[in-house]
Amino acid sequence: MPAARRRGRPVGGGGGKREEILAAARRVFAAEGFDRATLRTIAGAAQVDPAMVRHYFGDKAGLFRAALHLPLDPAQAIGAIVAAGVDGLGERIVRFFLTVWDLPGGISPFVAFLRGAAGHDESRTMLQEMLDQVLFPTMAKGLAEANGTAPEEARLRVVMCGTQLVGLGMARYVIGVEPVASLPVDRLVELYAPTLQRYLEGPLT
Amino acid sequence: MPAARRRGRPVGGGGGKREEILAAARRVFAAEGFDRATLRTIAGAAQVDPAMVRHYFGDKAGLFRAALHLPLDPAQAIGAIVAAGVDGLGERIVRFFLTVWDLPGGISPFVAFLRGAAGHDESRTMLQEMLDQVLFPTMAKGLAEANGTAPEEARLRVVMCGTQLVGLGMARYVIGVEPVASLPVDRLVELYAPTLQRYLEGPLT
Repeated sequence: MPAARRRGRPVGGGGGKREEILAAARRVFAAEGFDRATLRTIAGAAQVDPAMVRHYFGDKAGLFRAALHLPLDPAQAIGAIVAAGVDGLGERIVRFFLTVWDLPGGISPFVAFLRGAAGHDESRTMLQEMLDQVLFPTMAKGLAEANGTAPEEARLRVVMCGTQLVGLGMARYVIGVEPVASLPVDRLVELYAPTLQRYLEGPLT
Repeated sequence: MPAARRRGRPVGGGGGKREEILAAARRVFAAEGFDRATLRTIAGAAQVDPAMVRHYFGDKAGLFRAALHLPLDPAQAIGAIVAAGVDGLGERIVRFFLTVWDLPGGISPFVAFLRGAAGHDESRTMLQEMLDQVLFPTMAKGLAEANGTAPEEARLRVVMCGTQLVGLGMARYVIGVEPVASLPVDRLVELYAPTLQRYLEGPLT
């Protein structure tokens, strides 16, 4: 019996295959890491032709993003934010994450990560991959290009920003700590942007 | 058949009862909250006399701490840290948490929280209780007493410190993000203390 069509699926069927590809992608990305995983391996694990994977998800990054339920391409978005320069960068980063997370479902990859954080499941491994291979390197590279920060220092600065964002996300969306759970985005940007700006270009002692 | 004695249990037996009381405490604290839970209710849930609960755990705070596997009394420790004044408080707080978390098993309540964070389990509810009823109020009260910060503002300042600490704890111990996973405590104190100090007494705009 064919599976019922779910809401939001593109017309044309194949929805079952799409889900199978995503499930295979999660297994393979978690086992192999983003770098070593290939569309061909994932297609093989899903028992479909690689062309079908490309049809649904474009490239490996698109597949990765879909497997993580990300509403946008974080590397592309963050790349554009960093490329606009170091001035006001802390503010743009805080505003970007709060805006994405505030979207319906925007926080779900983050919560999926937390579900797996204490164990060793696929969500955890995939999100580590995303942070370590995509998000942090993109930001660090942008910072190095913007003001000549050395790569190792740029990595530290970017990771420090990451720690504050992760903690803010947990408090606002997961634990629900007041007042940060209900403060408007503008107020949170005002409160936290100076911290990120210091992490990005202030003294590190 | 009697249960085998476990390592680290005080001589005198009763280990099984002690574990039963802790299990009952986790259920009752999660269901009722710290304030409404009583030693009597917990003793009833564990089918023991309240005197036995007091014998093992002293008072309700001691039982709560044991149920959360905390290595020390956070309210007492933080109370003492805040009482020493606002000067250098950011540094003392960062150093305190990193030192406790670096202890063997010191991070385990935090990881237990993460396990439950995305669901609605007892660890999550109990740690929310601890943050909301014990840790944040103790710190906020100390800050208000130290320099006359209004209670609502003191709460915001303390919660902001909490967001940075939670994010740092996740990056260092749970996700394992380099370089913060392996930097020495002294270096992390140097990097993060200025942020907490600003949250505690700097401008909030």
